[in-house]
Amino acid sequence: MTSNSYRREQDTLGEILVPKDAYYGAQTQRAINNFQISNRRFPHEFIKVQAMIKAAAAKANMENELLAKSIGNAIIGASEEVMEGKWDHQFVLDVYQAGAGTSQNMNANEVIANRATELLDDAEKHGRIHPNDHVNMSQSTNDTFHAVIHITAAVIINQKLLPRVKQLHDELKRKSIELMPVMKSGRTHLHDAIPIRMGQEFSGYAETIHEVYQQLERVTDSLYEIGIGGTAIGTRNNIHPDYSKKVIQEISRRTNLPFREPTDMFSYMQNTNAPIRVMQVIKELSIHLIKITSDLRLLASGPRTGLTEISLPGVQPGSTIMPGKVNPAILEMTHMVCCQVIGYETTIATAGVAGQLEINVMMPLIAHTFIESLEIMSNALPTLVTKCISGITANEENCKNFMENSLALVTGISSIVGYDMAAQIGKEADSRNVPIKQVLQERELLTPEIEKALDPNGMV
Amino acid sequence: MTSNSYRREQDTLGEILVPKDAYYGAQTQRAINNFQISNRRFPHEFIKVQAMIKAAAAKANMENELLAKSIGNAIIGASEEVMEGKWDHQFVLDVYQAGAGTSQNMNANEVIANRATELLDDAEKHGRIHPNDHVNMSQSTNDTFHAVIHITAAVIINQKLLPRVKQLHDELKRKSIELMPVMKSGRTHLHDAIPIRMGQEFSGYAETIHEVYQQLERVTDSLYEIGIGGTAIGTRNNIHPDYSKKVIQEISRRTNLPFREPTDMFSYMQNTNAPIRVMQVIKELSIHLIKITSDLRLLASGPRTGLTEISLPGVQPGSTIMPGKVNPAILEMTHMVCCQVIGYETTIATAGVAGQLEINVMMPLIAHTFIESLEIMSNALPTLVTKCISGITANEENCKNFMENSLALVTGISSIVGYDMAAQIGKEADSRNVPIKQVLQERELLTPEIEKALDPNGMV
Amino acid sequence: MTSNSYRREQDTLGEILVPKDAYYGAQTQRAINNFQISNRRFPHEFIKVQAMIKAAAAKANMENELLAKSIGNAIIGASEEVMEGKWDHQFVLDVYQAGAGTSQNMNANEVIANRATELLDDAEKHGRIHPNDHVNMSQSTNDTFHAVIHITAAVIINQKLLPRVKQLHDELKRKSIELMPVMKSGRTHLHDAIPIRMGQEFSGYAETIHEVYQQLERVTDSLYEIGIGGTAIGTRNNIHPDYSKKVIQEISRRTNLPFREPTDMFSYMQNTNAPIRVMQVIKELSIHLIKITSDLRLLASGPRTGLTEISLPGVQPGSTIMPGKVNPAILEMTHMVCCQVIGYETTIATAGVAGQLEINVMMPLIAHTFIESLEIMSNALPTLVTKCISGITANEENCKNFMENSLALVTGISSIVGYDMAAQIGKEADSRNVPIKQVLQERELLTPEIEKALDPNGMV
Amino acid sequence: MTSNSYRREQDTLGEILVPKDAYYGAQTQRAINNFQISNRRFPHEFIKVQAMIKAAAAKANMENELLAKSIGNAIIGASEEVMEGKWDHQFVLDVYQAGAGTSQNMNANEVIANRATELLDDAEKHGRIHPNDHVNMSQSTNDTFHAVIHITAAVIINQKLLPRVKQLHDELKRKSIELMPVMKSGRTHLHDAIPIRMGQEFSGYAETIHEVYQQLERVTDSLYEIGIGGTAIGTRNNIHPDYSKKVIQEISRRTNLPFREPTDMFSYMQNTNAPIRVMQVIKELSIHLIKITSDLRLLASGPRTGLTEISLPGVQPGSTIMPGKVNPAILEMTHMVCCQVIGYETTIATAGVAGQLEINVMMPLIAHTFIESLEIMSNALPTLVTKCISGITANEENCKNFMENSLALVTGISSIVGYDMAAQIGKEADSRNVPIKQVLQERELLTPEIEKALDPNGMV
Repeated sequence: MTSNSYRREQDTLGEILVPKDAYYGAQTQRAINNFQISNRRFPHEFIKVQAMIKAAAAKANMENELLAKSIGNAIIGASEEVMEGKWDHQFVLDVYQAGAGTSQNMNANEVIANRATELLDDAEKHGRIHPNDHVNMSQSTNDTFHAVIHITAAVIINQKLLPRVKQLHDELKRKSIELMPVMKSGRTHLHDAIPIRMGQEFSGYAETIHEVYQQLERVTDSLYEIGIGGTAIGTRNNIHPDYSKKVIQEISRRTNLPFREPTDMFSYMQNTNAPIRVMQVIKELSIHLIKITSDLRLLASGPRTGLTEISLPGVQPGSTIMPGKVNPAILEMTHMVCCQVIGYETTIATAGVAGQLEINVMMPLIAHTFIESLEIMSNALPTLVTKCISGITANEENCKNFMENSLALVTGISSIVGYDMAAQIGKEADSRNVPIKQVLQERELLTPEIEKALDPNGMV
Repeated sequence: MTSNSYRREQDTLGEILVPKDAYYGAQTQRAINNFQISNRRFPHEFIKVQAMIKAAAAKANMENELLAKSIGNAIIGASEEVMEGKWDHQFVLDVYQAGAGTSQNMNANEVIANRATELLDDAEKHGRIHPNDHVNMSQSTNDTFHAVIHITAAVIINQKLLPRVKQLHDELKRKSIELMPVMKSGRTHLHDAIPIRMGQEFSGYAETIHEVYQQLERVTDSLYEIGIGGTAIGTRNNIHPDYSKKVIQEISRRTNLPFREPTDMFSYMQNTNAPIRVMQVIKELSIHLIKITSDLRLLASGPRTGLTEISLPGVQPGSTIMPGKVNPAILEMTHMVCCQVIGYETTIATAGVAGQLEINVMMPLIAHTFIESLEIMSNALPTLVTKCISGITANEENCKNFMENSLALVTGISSIVGYDMAAQIGKEADSRNVPIKQVLQERELLTPEIEKALDPNGMV
Repeated sequence: MTSNSYRREQDTLGEILVPKDAYYGAQTQRAINNFQISNRRFPHEFIKVQAMIKAAAAKANMENELLAKSIGNAIIGASEEVMEGKWDHQFVLDVYQAGAGTSQNMNANEVIANRATELLDDAEKHGRIHPNDHVNMSQSTNDTFHAVIHITAAVIINQKLLPRVKQLHDELKRKSIELMPVMKSGRTHLHDAIPIRMGQEFSGYAETIHEVYQQLERVTDSLYEIGIGGTAIGTRNNIHPDYSKKVIQEISRRTNLPFREPTDMFSYMQNTNAPIRVMQVIKELSIHLIKITSDLRLLASGPRTGLTEISLPGVQPGSTIMPGKVNPAILEMTHMVCCQVIGYETTIATAGVAGQLEINVMMPLIAHTFIESLEIMSNALPTLVTKCISGITANEENCKNFMENSLALVTGISSIVGYDMAAQIGKEADSRNVPIKQVLQERELLTPEIEKALDPNGMV
Repeated sequence: MTSNSYRREQDTLGEILVPKDAYYGAQTQRAINNFQISNRRFPHEFIKVQAMIKAAAAKANMENELLAKSIGNAIIGASEEVMEGKWDHQFVLDVYQAGAGTSQNMNANEVIANRATELLDDAEKHGRIHPNDHVNMSQSTNDTFHAVIHITAAVIINQKLLPRVKQLHDELKRKSIELMPVMKSGRTHLHDAIPIRMGQEFSGYAETIHEVYQQLERVTDSLYEIGIGGTAIGTRNNIHPDYSKKVIQEISRRTNLPFREPTDMFSYMQNTNAPIRVMQVIKELSIHLIKITSDLRLLASGPRTGLTEISLPGVQPGSTIMPGKVNPAILEMTHMVCCQVIGYETTIATAGVAGQLEINVMMPLIAHTFIESLEIMSNALPTLVTKCISGITANEENCKNFMENSLALVTGISSIVGYDMAAQIGKEADSRNVPIKQVLQERELLTPEIEKALDPNGMV
């Protein structure tokens, strides 16, 4: 560290050295020094929304004549550069940082202040535009960081997650129709059950995903409440009466999403209600995806030692030692993403109960975990659809063999001969390892009515 | 065990001894012998719905001319006795039992069959009405047990949980209005923040609960889907075309709730979507209740060694060794119920991923855990409201003292003197342990504008 | 409520009506009135230990000449009656009660005080022996309730859980030896893998359980630390120097377990370290049991539509609609118990983070959930062993067929022909649906060396 | 993509384009194409151990005369370059990838094969050394990937986590001694309790951490079991009898840790027992850290509106809007890391139950989540110690004031005047808002014995 490569900055805790060419300042530097935990950063999508709020606030503050035009326009200019990704490398803080996101907010304030200062025509290059007094004007970390979470999540959900959940549903539905002619044995408790159509199984999968889609769409609404203007604790202390409306309009315009003020500002400030709620639905999606992908792995088990009722597209070799092996890799990846998301929900719930009075300081963690859940789920789904589900084919022969041998066919005659007699016949077929029909024949019970009752086609 | 006190019964696995006076039969007895795990039983509310479905199915089967009037009416008669609670003691199975609830369903089938047989005018007393062929006619465990969960939960939520969540909201709202005049210091990070009204804090609590209320009401809708007639795996095998409609109408009539057929029968049979979804909202409620009750415990801390901004009604002595101690017992109980419910959600999620193909055999566990969650939450809430929240009083003197000493008052002058100068003043007041105002006076900064800016009344 | 059936009692909060013949008193009655949540009570095993501590404390207090012999002996007499179960019906409190267990402790204090008073020769029948001054002498809820959890759990683990985990291990080991001759195909990713012996699979199960056994044995040691004499917060305020040692000796004598004073009294009082730690191991056991029982259900799937490599003993009919069906009911029950326990661990962890300063008030919940976990696991295990695992048989024919058809046999020749060529051969066998050997024969590669390399016997 | 910048490679699924200068090959490229999920990679520590095993295997295979010296030495040379970090940029796979880690293993095999080929004196530059036949010789993904998890974790725990948990304990112990003279009021249920020394509170914290330290040390032993040589499913198929021993010796030599063969190879292959077990202890640590850091935040609450019994070192400004605010940022970060780790444990448990038969394919997820937990915890701890705990100071005046006002002082006279009378006195002092002593004086009860009994010094 040479004196050439660092500059001295000052904050309320004293002097601190900051890299000479850094756009961030003293407070960011303190957070860098304090938090070297994971090497993980907030993603661009998040930083972009941080800057979007700074721009929208500057615009409102100018319109409300609280901020000089020259300063305000410089802030907007710098913010738009951040939104374009030009300064991502200046957002350097670990996601595990000080509570509530103060450091992350200051990182944005400082980078934008310094870059905006550069954009001023005749400015002294540092210190002219103030990170707190100008860039953060009318804002607090609490109201804006919260809003960044809501907006980033709402954008990802609308642009990626919802359409991709729909894509998954649509493909499952399409497969359901395609596979409707395939008859097979049902299985309950992994034991022989009455016949079913493979398309019916996929119909169940499709509807399950559809319900989650609807649920996700519904709860996303709660993300549109953003308490801009609540400042530190919801009291709208020192805020121009038009401020919240103006900022929210600008954000809605930029994102094309219907953001609005929260029903109650204090509820919004105290908690992270919306992330917790949406996360429950992401967990619901994960639970169902684990079930569906586990089913598909079971049906695709084999090729010689499993059920092999379906085949999956081979996407890559499956063993470094067993040549020719091809595994259900895409389903396994999806299962892993779901386990991760279920864990992230635990993280958010554990953080969610840690709110105290006017604020929940766990917000950086909630932000990071929530956004990451949305991202990995959004990326896993189209992979699942295009590289696995759309290419599934039925092995009809295997399906037919299982179905015709199933002991549960005896169910068909139960309403004719009674449960007890049917059970006896089933038991005999089982212990002698012969088909149901053979036992009926030997017992001279194979009337046309019974024969019809045993026909799988009549059962589905 | 004397031969006098037992009778011999038969099922597909052979002979078994059943207590002579038991109304249940062989299959229930096998399950008793197999499962001695927890000594916990399904509650009456659950058994009642089991019987309600039996009655409704018998009615539909009679109308569809599949079941003789005499038998059908006897089944209805016996089922209504069960619904009244007359035979609760004959429902003897541990909640940890065979997968899918087959044993629990057979317990109902056997008790109702044997009691219905007694109700027949001239019947041989045992075996005349058959538990499977008659009582279980047109049913499977899978479609009915599932429906029992939905119906029982929908009834409890409508009769108890929803109105009680509303009661909690209403009381919090009422307190919010009552406590709106009380000014106090806000706290973020448990550190001095700008002033807030106590009523605003309660307004936040009220709205948070209100949102959960709306969410709960919305997801309860998914419980109204009951796949009666799906039988074993959703294929409606061997079911009269009018059956489902008739049974669902009868259940809707008896419960006065709008049950309907599921959008997709296979989705309904494969999973327990609705319980998983509703449970997420119960968890959401728990997360928020922990936060709110923890806040109240913190505000009520003391009486001499805490914040003591509020006082709670004393409901019982709080220590066996420290005389005169009174603890926030109701809040603590509520917190414990919430921790339990959060654990139950984990149980249901862990069971929820264990579905395989046409069925999730974890249903008895999901049933038990889900219903218990609804019950304990329903019982905790009115206790919380009537024995704690409604009696909360503010200690205005303490509130005022904290507020007037808060270092965060300096925020008021930040927009006048700038963030950096305000921070310096705050820091000096802190280190010298004097009020903000004193520092300003000494620095000859206490203009009327500044004085006004420091007034807490202007901040809320 | 007639005046005849109630008596008036007094506590620090005023007068209260108590049933005339109740042995409990005012404080228990207040808790009854306050907490009607779940209708669940602490089990006898727990109440027994509560009384054991009362007896041991009275003995020590007498020896230390703090308590009159007549009173002390009466307390011991009454406590022993409680230990025998004579007064279980007087322990009437919901498990969801006031924090820390104060009410539960007072229930014991009051019942024992009133019963002890009866046991006095010439006593006025009520009020003579005081629940706090005499029965609770030298004790606090915090130190004793904590100790009750430790002692109850240590007793259940030593008497039931540990021997039953061992029984499970021993049976799995026995099966491992019995099934060692059975050769079958391994499966990884549910896809063909190289051959394995069924006994090797069970050997893996056995060792996994063995490791949990050792782990459980090890962590049980932490339950032996009981902070008797710490009183309210660990400061041993007002306690005779010999008190802790005497009480712990007496409890060790009565339980035959090596209880001792904690290394640090304050750590013991602040948290519930030992229950949290032991619960982690119970969760570990659950995770492994779910895996093992799921494997067994998969291997037993069928009888006609699954793998059917093993058969399980049939313990009860498996369907109310599909006659003759027999399900893996015992394995399913075990899986459900494990899901419950995993949820209980979440409950305990969620409660575990809620400790504040000198105490964790969530103790009644932790107690209830922890003890219940130990109980249901202790009861599920021998059911699993005797009704399922010990009766498992291998279907050798099925195993052999799968093995001989497995495409993974090609692995055997990989070190001879190279991974790439082996993969080609495997792929061809797969696409043409013929055995590996046939492809090799057609390619004229079936040398004696290759033939030997393909022999499953050489692979295990 | 120009034809210049890519080369064509072949695997069992056909031809694929790979960047011309990539050291990885076809299988890695397929995995890149398949898995674009999170942009997260395995860390260098993990890759290093992957290479370490490759080197150790090559050494053993040479010694066992299965691998030509020239090839083996080139593999070792390339592996050592990987271990030095020279090729980290060639390890490009998303952590969410194919099950079991096959792709990750192939990434190592391909990079090392291609680099080793370069290192050959006279080699054709590609294809000469084969990723499977040479680099992966005697290995499977299942046995080695598993081992990589164990070894990486064991190294991190020994080099970082254990010493840092110890450092935390030592610092807490040191503070305990330093703060032992500070007398203060205890608090239970956040309500007045009897006096305690601040050093006693820290003594509790220290011991709690000490117990976790011992527990962590103990369970780390299970990581030393590495099933090198088990190959695909534990059968040691085609492995030289000396292979496992040789490889394990070499790894032990390189890491200076006592690795050994597992007690049962099949248990090792079927599950991820050791990561699950260690993760339970990391969760245990997290639970306790949340409690301790929450306590410290509560004790440090203020400076004007909280308890302010301790002061924390100020590490950075705490608000973008409230000037001069300093928050307990380090404690908050630690709390967030703990919430994350608790969520990761859920992930691992959810993945842990998903094992099937010979393998648990969730291993890449378990690896990533487990290692990340160890890393972030290892990094958070010294930050917690050096930037927060070591600088804590007591505010003795505040402590004293709370203590002397505490109503729980009345406990001191309870054994003299009886619980009921003491409670009355306490109640009166409370309602009149006067000290205990004043009530006693007014009632003429303030004898020297009573006065002594009220002295806090006698209580701790």
